[in-house]
Amino acid sequence: MKFLQSFGPNPRRVRMYMLEKNVQVPSVELDILGGENRGEAYKKKNPSGQLPALELDDGFVLAETVSICRYLEELHPNPPLIGTTAKERAETDMWIRRVELDVTGYMLDAFRYSEGLKLFENRVRCLPEAAAGMKEKGRDGLKWLDGLLAGKTWLAGNRFTLADILLYCDLDFLGSVGQPYDTGLKNIDAWFKRAAARPSAAASLHAASAQTGMRG
Amino acid sequence: MKFLQSFGPNPRRVRMYMLEKNVQVPSVELDILGGENRGEAYKKKNPSGQLPALELDDGFVLAETVSICRYLEELHPNPPLIGTTAKERAETDMWIRRVELDVTGYMLDAFRYSEGLKLFENRVRCLPEAAAGMKEKGRDGLKWLDGLLAGKTWLAGNRFTLADILLYCDLDFLGSVGQPYDTGLKNIDAWFKRAAARPSAAASLHAASAQTGMRG
Repeated sequence: MKFLQSFGPNPRRVRMYMLEKNVQVPSVELDILGGENRGEAYKKKNPSGQLPALELDDGFVLAETVSICRYLEELHPNPPLIGTTAKERAETDMWIRRVELDVTGYMLDAFRYSEGLKLFENRVRCLPEAAAGMKEKGRDGLKWLDGLLAGKTWLAGNRFTLADILLYCDLDFLGSVGQPYDTGLKNIDAWFKRAAARPSAAASLHAASAQTGMRG
Repeated sequence: MKFLQSFGPNPRRVRMYMLEKNVQVPSVELDILGGENRGEAYKKKNPSGQLPALELDDGFVLAETVSICRYLEELHPNPPLIGTTAKERAETDMWIRRVELDVTGYMLDAFRYSEGLKLFENRVRCLPEAAAGMKEKGRDGLKWLDGLLAGKTWLAGNRFTLADILLYCDLDFLGSVGQPYDTGLKNIDAWFKRAAARPSAAASLHAASAQTGMRG
């Protein structure tokens, strides 16, 4: 297998996941800031032009952060980061969807349409007119998650899961590009600090973070 | 188990999935058009206020369409609609994400912010200013999927999967509320007709579809 990766919050999700798993996969670095992932060579592998991707030994290219982690979870079940029973796995999936579809998806798109516009305007269709409202939707979502975290250590209760990894990597990145979470959200704030204290958090940061000031 | 459901494209996804599986779960009907799902009684079960949800025998409420289907897939593996190997399951997950995150998620939000505004403006934060652009992003996404479907029967090749169910239910609904797909997309069009011809397609439509003119 080869892990095709780069700087950025999406590749970082998988790096942090692999560090938590203690799984090593040989990686190939692409220049995402220079747009190498939008070139024809890479798009033959992943037609979405997004990073990261996992190239399997049979040549099949698996894209999408969560799909890559699901695959690795089946190869390396321990420690479990999705779940050990059907119910646990489904519950983790529910939290993954709540994080992405109701919270950070809006915030990351809003970044592309505002602070990140110069980087993204020639890569994807950008909607600057939507940025302010999508940031608001993200803030609504975080406030909602804050309530749901009451009395819990992690999103799925006592289990640290892939859903926490996604939320942590996304919020850490967003905080560095103009969308810090409201530290008045006490449950989110305490949860964030717990996640940030895991060794995988610092270890998954790409070297380009220091140069760019963006945490990815 | 109890299936908490209603009219609408999201509950329909799970209905179609269960019909394909020949799985029956006793269901409880909620009045989504009247907003019963946004009331406190239901939000105690699913704090997102979204339908459907699956209430397990131990009282745990599993929300999110795809999470419910994942759970049922583990209880009832045949016929497989996610996959029979780690690679197949991860590939299906990749297609689910491409469908939702790159295509229909934008279109469904755009519906809420435009044609569906009267229904949604008191339920969720709506961004009318984003609707036109999000419809464009959906059209971009469909054109992209059209290319990826070339030479294939279903999104994951020869396997009919949950990803096809999501795309079909979403596009069928969207076509009835002002966002028909471009029939000039020949691969999408042929794929849609293949999906629509499955007995589960008609059988999963809610009775309220006839009254509302919306296919959900």
